[in-house]
Amino acid sequence: MKILEPYKAIFLHHLEEELVPKEPTNLYKPISYILSIGGKRLRPLLAMLMCDVYGSAPEKAIHAAMAVEIFHNFTLVHDDVMDHAALRRGKQTVHEKWNLNTAILSGDAMMIRAYQFLENYDNDLHKPLTKLFSNTALQVCEGQQLDVDFEEREDVTIEEYLQMIIYKTSVLIGAAMKMGALIANVPDNEAQKVYDFGLNLGIAFQLKDDYLDTFGNAEIFGKKIGGDILENKKTLLYLKALEKADETSKKKLTAWYRTNEQSEQKIKEVTNIFSSLKIDEVVKKEIVKYNEKAFEFLSQLSISKEKSTILKQFSDQLSKRII
Amino acid sequence: MKILEPYKAIFLHHLEEELVPKEPTNLYKPISYILSIGGKRLRPLLAMLMCDVYGSAPEKAIHAAMAVEIFHNFTLVHDDVMDHAALRRGKQTVHEKWNLNTAILSGDAMMIRAYQFLENYDNDLHKPLTKLFSNTALQVCEGQQLDVDFEEREDVTIEEYLQMIIYKTSVLIGAAMKMGALIANVPDNEAQKVYDFGLNLGIAFQLKDDYLDTFGNAEIFGKKIGGDILENKKTLLYLKALEKADETSKKKLTAWYRTNEQSEQKIKEVTNIFSSLKIDEVVKKEIVKYNEKAFEFLSQLSISKEKSTILKQFSDQLSKRII
Repeated sequence: MKILEPYKAIFLHHLEEELVPKEPTNLYKPISYILSIGGKRLRPLLAMLMCDVYGSAPEKAIHAAMAVEIFHNFTLVHDDVMDHAALRRGKQTVHEKWNLNTAILSGDAMMIRAYQFLENYDNDLHKPLTKLFSNTALQVCEGQQLDVDFEEREDVTIEEYLQMIIYKTSVLIGAAMKMGALIANVPDNEAQKVYDFGLNLGIAFQLKDDYLDTFGNAEIFGKKIGGDILENKKTLLYLKALEKADETSKKKLTAWYRTNEQSEQKIKEVTNIFSSLKIDEVVKKEIVKYNEKAFEFLSQLSISKEKSTILKQFSDQLSKRII
Repeated sequence: MKILEPYKAIFLHHLEEELVPKEPTNLYKPISYILSIGGKRLRPLLAMLMCDVYGSAPEKAIHAAMAVEIFHNFTLVHDDVMDHAALRRGKQTVHEKWNLNTAILSGDAMMIRAYQFLENYDNDLHKPLTKLFSNTALQVCEGQQLDVDFEEREDVTIEEYLQMIIYKTSVLIGAAMKMGALIANVPDNEAQKVYDFGLNLGIAFQLKDDYLDTFGNAEIFGKKIGGDILENKKTLLYLKALEKADETSKKKLTAWYRTNEQSEQKIKEVTNIFSSLKIDEVVKKEIVKYNEKAFEFLSQLSISKEKSTILKQFSDQLSKRII
């Protein structure tokens, strides 16, 4: 996203400091590794963007940016263990490259490091930031737990699925943006609208992620298409398909989601069912819906028309992304 | 410890609130479980004790007490995974009673809950408490990493071992006591002496733990005697034995520590080598040494003679404990 580019340079510069070798090596090397293998850096850059939007230097948000990025990467390290994932961003996951104990312990240390970055703020800013951060972090854990629980359940509702992705993904996007606003010293009620803007943006973002996982272009998306299908993830695509399907398709679909088959055929047949039910269009509509919800909150922000337009363009780009 | 009893009643009362069932059940039930199966509650009670010693109501330290106890239990949950431990306080460990993913995720949530308890303090107290807490928590992770690293190494020095137990155990005891003092509003330099008092007390405490693991009375100690020997833990007992042993005993000892044999014979033979080298006496002397170091800091505290005497008696009890 072009609008985030200037912040990215600042962010990556600061990130470098965190990558300096520290003792004990076996604890800190995996942290440097996971932090350095890339990613969109969406959350930290959004914190900096919102700080800038409210007229404060984006650099002021750098510590909050570091906190959310390190926390986000901590969740990836632990989630990858839980999901038995071998690859992350096309590279070996921490538990694959090292081992289970390293992934657990280095992950734990990352969570603490995240909190430490917030220490850079004055007492009166430190507490609301830390409070927001902890509240959000706990919701992320709850979201991950729901995700794990849903694997075993066949009666997951669309509402429950949305609650899960809100907790697992959207709240941290909302919180990152709110942190940027708080650092720029905006009043609480304004910061809350920023949060709601970010939260809905985050829902659209995750739904787009689910969409791309099935309907994306493998070469551009940068990860395997159909991963969610192979893992039997009960995403919005699957849940909407169950809703729309006739008995035959429903039976086929649930049968596929009960196997652990890791074949191209499974991806192809499930995708065909989705396509025949026009699930791609259904999900696209949902993305638009949450984007519009986000715009409602955006329109309520006390910012210039010019800045509002920039944020709107950015949101559009985010929901239209193909990566 | 009798002196801690009044605080224990207050603490356990507050702990009850944390044990109330919460959703998602699979995340919070393991947390209630590990928090309710007991333990000495040493760290939280020490926070309350020090707050009381400095003339503030011990109840004021309850949130810091909850934070350190929940954090301590979080480390137990994750450490038990890393150590493949099946039992904790005579009960199933979390990963045994549930599974690996639960132990990881519920542990993560516990760390966040710990931070949340500190939110109960005013901005100006919240930040120094959180800072001390994070710094300590990171050292605990580093200590655990050193412990893991030492399993693979045969050249661990006594100095390195002490550094490891300081990080893994003593710093949290020092920090808990310092938190109590900070909550009672003592100046920083006084709080630092409290920390140093607690740190040395914590070293003596851990050395006593190591001592009891080999030379304790199984029925009173409440856990299997010889556990450290079976796990080939390079404790002070082992390292001091290597220092004092002749070539024959040294060879025997290192040979035992290279096997994964889980036999009573191994415990017996290694204990016999320790005994013949009078390692029990050597370690007792070390415990006295760190207790005396603790007393040096204790004597520098700006508290009444009466309170100083109480703390000294308590420290003596702690190092003479048989449990």
